[in-house]
Amino acid sequence: MHPSEAEFANEAFYMAFSRLDVAAMEALWSARHEAVCLHPGWPALIGREAIIDSWRSIFANPDQPPVTFHSASSRSMGPGIVAVVCYEVVAGSTMVATNLFVEEDGQPRLVLHQSGICARPPLASVEDSLDVN
Amino acid sequence: MHPSEAEFANEAFYMAFSRLDVAAMEALWSARHEAVCLHPGWPALIGREAIIDSWRSIFANPDQPPVTFHSASSRSMGPGIVAVVCYEVVAGSTMVATNLFVEEDGQPRLVLHQSGICARPPLASVEDSLDVN
Repeated sequence: MHPSEAEFANEAFYMAFSRLDVAAMEALWSARHEAVCLHPGWPALIGREAIIDSWRSIFANPDQPPVTFHSASSRSMGPGIVAVVCYEVVAGSTMVATNLFVEEDGQPRLVLHQSGICARPPLASVEDSLDVN
Repeated sequence: MHPSEAEFANEAFYMAFSRLDVAAMEALWSARHEAVCLHPGWPALIGREAIIDSWRSIFANPDQPPVTFHSASSRSMGPGIVAVVCYEVVAGSTMVATNLFVEEDGQPRLVLHQSGICARPPLASVEDSLDVN
């Protein structure tokens, strides 16, 4: 898996998040590994079922604000594994996030998502900002 | 690499952190991958030099409170790559952290550390708590 493939999957992740699309989100997560998801402030969620349930409850919240992301960069961490780091903007707050993708059947799949408040985020430039709405 | 080897390396990480030991911390980080370190609230640090510099400045802070960790659990994310999730307690605040280790020359090395505030952490039991001081 080339890092750019993980960056495309990272875009798909924020598109699913932004569109509150549970099916698209579900398709992105690993079916083979025990995945880990750490939403800002939450305790760790381990395993596909707990993770998909959490997205379902986030997406069901009528006050869930839209998300955008910027400044994504990726790096290979070994054969078939790529880490993407980016900044998420939700309701005026910026989070820094890591999304770790592994290759499954030729497709990048999420095994780890962690997002947390970033007090001193870099500015988003027009070039590296993507409005996924 | 067996997940338990990454858990030992995770202990060594918190021992280095707790003892403010720059050399021990430096030895734990990958020399081959472009590592990523996300301290709570900080922007992402990319690459060994920026990461070691950050630990040097954290360890040089005379008011740096001691750290303990608990509830570490690990899972393989692919050949030679293991994610450890645990809770860090610093000055009464609990953070949830991910530490991702890859195998280099038969040793687990850190390629990713991300730590962020956890508002509703699980309780540490006596069994799974380790005072690394």
